[in-house]
Amino acid sequence: MRVALLGPEGTYTHQAAEKYFGEFEPDFCSTIREVFESETDTKFMPVENSLGGGVSDTIDLLRKNGNKITAEVVLPINHALISNSGLEEIETIKSHPQALAQSEEIISEHEWEKVETDSTAKAVQEIQEGEAALASEIAAEINEMPIVQTAVQDTETNTTRFFVLNGEPEPQEKASLILEPGEDRPGLLHSMLSCFAGHQINLSHIQSRPTKKGLGEYFFYVEAEAADERLEKAVQCLETYGDIKLLGKYSEVE
Amino acid sequence: MRVALLGPEGTYTHQAAEKYFGEFEPDFCSTIREVFESETDTKFMPVENSLGGGVSDTIDLLRKNGNKITAEVVLPINHALISNSGLEEIETIKSHPQALAQSEEIISEHEWEKVETDSTAKAVQEIQEGEAALASEIAAEINEMPIVQTAVQDTETNTTRFFVLNGEPEPQEKASLILEPGEDRPGLLHSMLSCFAGHQINLSHIQSRPTKKGLGEYFFYVEAEAADERLEKAVQCLETYGDIKLLGKYSEVE
Repeated sequence: MRVALLGPEGTYTHQAAEKYFGEFEPDFCSTIREVFESETDTKFMPVENSLGGGVSDTIDLLRKNGNKITAEVVLPINHALISNSGLEEIETIKSHPQALAQSEEIISEHEWEKVETDSTAKAVQEIQEGEAALASEIAAEINEMPIVQTAVQDTETNTTRFFVLNGEPEPQEKASLILEPGEDRPGLLHSMLSCFAGHQINLSHIQSRPTKKGLGEYFFYVEAEAADERLEKAVQCLETYGDIKLLGKYSEVE
Repeated sequence: MRVALLGPEGTYTHQAAEKYFGEFEPDFCSTIREVFESETDTKFMPVENSLGGGVSDTIDLLRKNGNKITAEVVLPINHALISNSGLEEIETIKSHPQALAQSEEIISEHEWEKVETDSTAKAVQEIQEGEAALASEIAAEINEMPIVQTAVQDTETNTTRFFVLNGEPEPQEKASLILEPGEDRPGLLHSMLSCFAGHQINLSHIQSRPTKKGLGEYFFYVEAEAADERLEKAVQCLETYGDIKLLGKYSEVE
């Protein structure tokens, strides 16, 4: 199976895609826009994360294109300590600034010198003697480098969510929608959300985004915890307030 | 005046800071977290943009720290074409992938070869003969490179918003708040937003973010178009539903 995804090889996006698809033929793209424009039908990209951003691009491009979300993949971000050297020989630690910031405890305990790289995957490619990298386990595997220790990040739980577009159907428990209000007035969002509240639907995510038609014009991206008849009724209700686009019904795959 | 801001030198964040502060002594930090941790009291960082992300980090760190938002700066993102060569001698164009994607028209018109760099500022530093970079005007100035043409991006309006923290007081027209619901039930967000709707306050931005205490626990970041008595009443109303943190009252500086 061929899948377009945000590259480069060995990033957490790659690891999440392998978790979901198993063996697959990757079509690595360098931006989220290129993933959307790829001729490869099945697509994979981050939608909410702390590492590397991406959520705004994904949401803006979902709004404009005719793709269907078919699954949500949640990946806990565990940084592996990757090195040819033993723990006591390491003097320098390389990684993306955010991965370094998320692993302060182990770094200060060993008094390692920090070197920033553009991506966690690149850090692994650049390891020299006496150096280590913080990156995904898949990056160690691809570069045939040993993992000294797994999950070395500070305790705080850090997960990233990804979407599969145009993939195999999954059980349907959630839905993503774009709400485009027909006007801008105080309380309009409150009125639109009454459609979800009235049909007893919980929202797990909401985000406003500029339409780019002009400053101060917004649309809303929401994730609803329903994909049944209640959702249909909520959409009917929402359509009395503006244009509604159903981006897909799907379930979360851990 | 000393200001901590997201670096490197010559990016759009630098340009926006210069627009607001005029002459200032920059303390460049390599991540948004480092800006928050800097001993420099006045801080400056992106809060909503399409170039380079950053919004999630800014919002998560505003929630945890005791900083006050004192101004919002809006910068239209105009890519300048920077080169030692004349328009007809240029063969290669260098920039961040998003800047290249936003300037497709001029690139395909001249059939330039695209080369991706990690930042728009870096593209300017790396210009060779027959090459040009897409970057901010301030990057051209810093590197003493000529601007061949200003605002070469495709027509779509692209703006980035920035926050000044702990700066000089400005007129107060807007407010940013963190809403932490006391429980998770269908309709709770709708109920909380009734406090704004009931007091005739428009929201210009809303975003849910995971609390990181556990999957599925969210807080909300909202921007309200009021900073007067109505806001005080809305906050009183909101406090009946959960914990509320007022991040600052400020106005937008164009």
